[in-house]
Amino acid sequence: MNRYQIKICYDGTCYFGWQSQTDKPSIQGALEACIYQILQKKVSVSGSGRTDAKAHAYGQVAHFDVDSPLDTYRFLYSLNVLLPKDIRVLQISKVSQDFHARYSVRSKIYYYYVHTDLILSPFLINYRHHFPYPLDLKEMKKARDLLLGTHDFTSFSNTGSVNHRPTKKMKRIDIVEKRDGICLIFQADGFLYKMVRNIVGHLLQVATQKIPAQDTTRILQAKDRAHAPGTVPAKGLFLKQVLYPAKLLTPSVDKKKNPEPQMQSASDTILKQPSNLFS
Amino acid sequence: MNRYQIKICYDGTCYFGWQSQTDKPSIQGALEACIYQILQKKVSVSGSGRTDAKAHAYGQVAHFDVDSPLDTYRFLYSLNVLLPKDIRVLQISKVSQDFHARYSVRSKIYYYYVHTDLILSPFLINYRHHFPYPLDLKEMKKARDLLLGTHDFTSFSNTGSVNHRPTKKMKRIDIVEKRDGICLIFQADGFLYKMVRNIVGHLLQVATQKIPAQDTTRILQAKDRAHAPGTVPAKGLFLKQVLYPAKLLTPSVDKKKNPEPQMQSASDTILKQPSNLFS
Repeated sequence: MNRYQIKICYDGTCYFGWQSQTDKPSIQGALEACIYQILQKKVSVSGSGRTDAKAHAYGQVAHFDVDSPLDTYRFLYSLNVLLPKDIRVLQISKVSQDFHARYSVRSKIYYYYVHTDLILSPFLINYRHHFPYPLDLKEMKKARDLLLGTHDFTSFSNTGSVNHRPTKKMKRIDIVEKRDGICLIFQADGFLYKMVRNIVGHLLQVATQKIPAQDTTRILQAKDRAHAPGTVPAKGLFLKQVLYPAKLLTPSVDKKKNPEPQMQSASDTILKQPSNLFS
Repeated sequence: MNRYQIKICYDGTCYFGWQSQTDKPSIQGALEACIYQILQKKVSVSGSGRTDAKAHAYGQVAHFDVDSPLDTYRFLYSLNVLLPKDIRVLQISKVSQDFHARYSVRSKIYYYYVHTDLILSPFLINYRHHFPYPLDLKEMKKARDLLLGTHDFTSFSNTGSVNHRPTKKMKRIDIVEKRDGICLIFQADGFLYKMVRNIVGHLLQVATQKIPAQDTTRILQAKDRAHAPGTVPAKGLFLKQVLYPAKLLTPSVDKKKNPEPQMQSASDTILKQPSNLFS
C-alpha cells in the first residue's frame, strides 16, 4: 500500500464545499472522479476537513492510498488536465502510512477577507465579505486578545453541530490592514463548524461598537451559540495552510526492502505555487 | 440638456460585450435598464467603443443626456445598488455638450495578461490567457518596435469588420514582466476590431519563434488579415483607460445663465477606485 498526500488550491464559488454529496458538485467528488479516470479504480480521497460551500482554499490537504507506486509527475499532470480549471492540485508527495490528512493535523491557518471600501471591485465579488463601515480596530484587537489561547469555542460553533472536543487552542489571530479593508488570519489546532465565520461576525460587531469587546469572555463562557452574533458569508474564507508533524511527511523507510530511501523523496512533485493575488 | 460622463468598471465574464443585444446580457443594456428604473425615462448610454464578450474594463467611459440636472451622488449610489455586482460605476461628471464618449477619444489604453506558469491559479481562470511556454522577450520586443508609430493595421483587424480609417497611431506597447507571465500595455489613438487580441497573438508567435520578428513589417504592409496569426482569448483583455482632451471634461459655462460655474464641478462624484488587483 502506498499513501500519497496532495495539496489542492480551489475557487469554491461553484461548489457545495469539500465533501462529496449526491448530485451536488464538491471538490472531493471532482478529485475522486478524476482519479478514477486515471487509475480505473475507485480511490477514496480524505481531506483535512470540510470547507463550506463557496469557501476557498489556497492549500487544502488530502491523502489517498493506492496499491502500486505512482509516477507522481505524470499523475499530477494528468489530474490537472482532467480536473475543472477552478481546482488545481499543486503538489503530490509519498508519505508515511501513519500520516492521515485529518487526524494528523497539528494546526490550520485560515484567512478571512473583509472589504470596507464603499465600492467592491467587480473582480472580487466572490472573494470578499463587503462590509462598508468604519472599523474600530483598537476595540477589535481587545476582543481578539480575549479569544487567544485555549477555550471551549462552543459559542462560536453553529448549533446543530456535534463536536465532542469543543476546546481548541487559538494560536494566532492577526488583523492585517489592507488598502481596502482587513484580512484576519486565524491559526488554531482545530476549528469547529463555522467557527472562523462566527468569530469574524463577532469581531465585526465589536469593531462597529454593537458589542463591547469585554463581552467576548462572557460569550465564550456561556458555551451557547445563542450568545454570539451571526455568521459572515463563506466567500471571504480561504483555507490557507494545513500543518503536520514533519516526521509524518516522509515515507517510513524499511532499509531492508528499500536500500535507497533518498530515491523516495525524489517522487515528490511540487508545482510552483500560483501567485497568491488574494493574500 | 445636461450631458454626463460615467466611468465604469466591469468583469465581462458573464456578458456578451459592451453593446446592447436582444436577449443577451450586455454592459450597455444593464446600465440603460438601471437608469430607466431610476429616472423612469429611456436614456441612451453611448460608450467609448465596444468591448468583446468576456473582455473586462477597469475604466470604460460612456455618456448620456438628461433634461434635468442630476444629484450625482444620489444617482451614482442608486445606480450601484441596482446594477449587478460585476458592474460598478466609479465616477460621474457633468461634461461639455461637445463631449462624446466615442468621437472625442484622444487615446485608449488596454492591458492584456498572458500567464506563462505551468499552473494557472483557480482564481484567475477568467482573467488570464494561459500560455505555458517560455517566451523570447528579446524577439518580442523587436516585433513590438516595428508596430510602434502610425500604420495601417488592417492585417491585425478581423476580416469582416469594416473600418474606413484603418490607420492608427500606436503610441506605446509596454511589455511588463510579472512573476507568472507578462502584461502587455497598449496605447493608441484608436483600435480596430480585435486589434489588441490579434497583435498579442502575433507577438506570442514571435516570442515562441514560430514567426521571425522582422516579418512584422511584411504583415503590416500586406494589409490583409490572412497574413497574421490567430487571435488570443478575450478573457485576458482589460480596457484600462480612455483619454479625452481636458477642455471637454468641464461643462461649458454660460456666465449669464450660471454666474457660479465652480458650483458645477462640485457636481462631479468620484468613488475611490477599487483596488486594481489585476494590474
